[in-house]
Amino acid sequence: MFSGRGFPESEYELRVEKAQDLMRKRGLDGLLCTTHPDIYYFTGFLTRFWESPTRPWFLVVPQAGKPIAVIPKIGEALMRTTWIDEIRTWSSPDLKDDGVTLLADTLKERIGSGKVGLPSGHETHLRMPISDFENLKQLLSGITIANDAEILRTLRMVKSPAEIEKIKRACGIAHHAFSRVQEFAYPGTQLSLVFRKFQMVCLEEGADWVPYLAGGSDKFGYADVISPAGDAELQNGDVLMLDTGLTWDGYFCDYDRNFSIGAPDQIVVDAHKTLIEATQAGFEAVKPGAAARVLFEAMDRVLTGGKGGNENGRLGHGLGIQLTEWPSLIPSDETELQAGMVLTLEPGIGTKNGNMLVHEENIVVTQSGAEYLSTPADEKIVRV
Amino acid sequence: MFSGRGFPESEYELRVEKAQDLMRKRGLDGLLCTTHPDIYYFTGFLTRFWESPTRPWFLVVPQAGKPIAVIPKIGEALMRTTWIDEIRTWSSPDLKDDGVTLLADTLKERIGSGKVGLPSGHETHLRMPISDFENLKQLLSGITIANDAEILRTLRMVKSPAEIEKIKRACGIAHHAFSRVQEFAYPGTQLSLVFRKFQMVCLEEGADWVPYLAGGSDKFGYADVISPAGDAELQNGDVLMLDTGLTWDGYFCDYDRNFSIGAPDQIVVDAHKTLIEATQAGFEAVKPGAAARVLFEAMDRVLTGGKGGNENGRLGHGLGIQLTEWPSLIPSDETELQAGMVLTLEPGIGTKNGNMLVHEENIVVTQSGAEYLSTPADEKIVRV
Repeated sequence: MFSGRGFPESEYELRVEKAQDLMRKRGLDGLLCTTHPDIYYFTGFLTRFWESPTRPWFLVVPQAGKPIAVIPKIGEALMRTTWIDEIRTWSSPDLKDDGVTLLADTLKERIGSGKVGLPSGHETHLRMPISDFENLKQLLSGITIANDAEILRTLRMVKSPAEIEKIKRACGIAHHAFSRVQEFAYPGTQLSLVFRKFQMVCLEEGADWVPYLAGGSDKFGYADVISPAGDAELQNGDVLMLDTGLTWDGYFCDYDRNFSIGAPDQIVVDAHKTLIEATQAGFEAVKPGAAARVLFEAMDRVLTGGKGGNENGRLGHGLGIQLTEWPSLIPSDETELQAGMVLTLEPGIGTKNGNMLVHEENIVVTQSGAEYLSTPADEKIVRV
Repeated sequence: MFSGRGFPESEYELRVEKAQDLMRKRGLDGLLCTTHPDIYYFTGFLTRFWESPTRPWFLVVPQAGKPIAVIPKIGEALMRTTWIDEIRTWSSPDLKDDGVTLLADTLKERIGSGKVGLPSGHETHLRMPISDFENLKQLLSGITIANDAEILRTLRMVKSPAEIEKIKRACGIAHHAFSRVQEFAYPGTQLSLVFRKFQMVCLEEGADWVPYLAGGSDKFGYADVISPAGDAELQNGDVLMLDTGLTWDGYFCDYDRNFSIGAPDQIVVDAHKTLIEATQAGFEAVKPGAAARVLFEAMDRVLTGGKGGNENGRLGHGLGIQLTEWPSLIPSDETELQAGMVLTLEPGIGTKNGNMLVHEENIVVTQSGAEYLSTPADEKIVRV
């Protein structure tokens, strides 16, 4: 098992071969990638510089041959460290032509008069100015830009053993961090300080970055699961929830833990127990060939008796290079589970005063069922 | 001076009034925002949940009246804590219609048969699936979607006193973190560990998040300024550079520091001194009414004798809610400087073996010139 940073070149070759096979089957002559996850997937180009929205970045994956990077000069040295051979650069930002002509020329040269697939559907976006995209289409005489026929989704959804190792490592780092929450969470501590300390222990335990942390703290849970921390202090009897997406070598974990500050109310005790039962029901429903919705249904039976869930929409999702990826564990998602898919199981339950508890674990689909990547929590809520 | 978290409601009212004034002048009946920076700017809605690409988020700013949020149900509780009154939600993800009809109905109701501005130019992107955007345009009978006539850029480029306070606070946190680099950077330390430790001290000193950190370490500098850390160990005689974009209450600092591991080579000593001189030349060139390119020219005279810079493209940029914002300090940027603009001065210089040194400070344009927001570095490189 390859478990260091990066991937062997053979892994990138395999990813591109699979993409090219799907292009042939789905009638595309190339792919155009513009986002960090898609470009990292094919090249290994890893940087936090995506935080800067100034410059667009492009990768052309033709139906034959290696991908071609069309990128700002500032990224050339880093791209040269990857397996990509052909790197075309321009001095960006260029207020008149920020790589559009260079990209159009590259597409015309490599695709000729064909059809280029651009990820266009659910959970995608185009990371270049819309006005530049309109200019690009005008320059592309003979080339059609169509959707990517879900090729990126199809490929990225199923993880390789080396990708799973990275996610597992991220999960392990979060596990160690969660086990240290008692070091800094007690009555009188500001939630904002808890957030900062938790990020620090994530880093100390080995995280490269902590791109995501949400949570809350209140009696009987919290009103939502996406808020940043305020300066309110933890109170005895609160439920503290921390939900982290930390990364190792570009791969995320995404799971949470609930803690009772002092003795928990019976409502909280029961809610937490139900969430663990729901998670386990979801876990047991996993098998290759089943639809994603089946996991929703298994968890929802425990949570609501099968009423179809709540308005927050889903009880889990894929993860990998992104904090959230396909599929969604919702009643309408018919995506067929396959071995190698990495998922979160994320049941939630209302408690009292408009608050709720949410629990989350990370799993990988195997040939026969599933394995936990996070160390599953006990049904008894942890008291700090 | 308001210096706590958030902003008084009057600040949001003023932002919207200014936007509406510009809409009238530039012939728009409303604005459509889809990204974190634009939505945070008008609402104060602050969450790291943008890390998840699954759900689209919309804000409609009509030419009269308050903005209307059209957002996934999962964000309702947090949006209710802002000054926004009208919040329309749907249960997302919805694989058939992920908010598109709700957004179209809202636009038709509030804009009628008018023209909606969407940020479309340099440094923008549309954060929704392209296929959904095509569907939206089809649903909008009578409404035209045009570019936003640079309204968002115009507004966000000039910071209020309260915004400047937040950036200054972020700069101060980074200053304290940089002053502690000697605690953990010495020969034999892996660069990846230096990165983790530096993020930890940023958090310890008060950062909410550390969304951006790049850097490098090698003899005579580094080959680029966007790479993540590898596991190579610091060596005596290396130049270590750390460039951080940490945030406080949603506002970034963005500056770097160079350190010599042991005694610096004379080439490094001289390069660092030149960079500080270039920075100071840029600083002294700042005055309201001058073009952004004038700062480039002032720094470039020190760096190259006025040859027009290098291929990395620019010697500084705006910052605020984003790590990098308008304008760009490049020869072609004619943006007129105004009091309240926050900028980085970021000169770079080649040294030896293809390596370089880059120095960066953060400043604010005042009525008469500029003030440093970062504590400016000494011309003598810090030895650790």
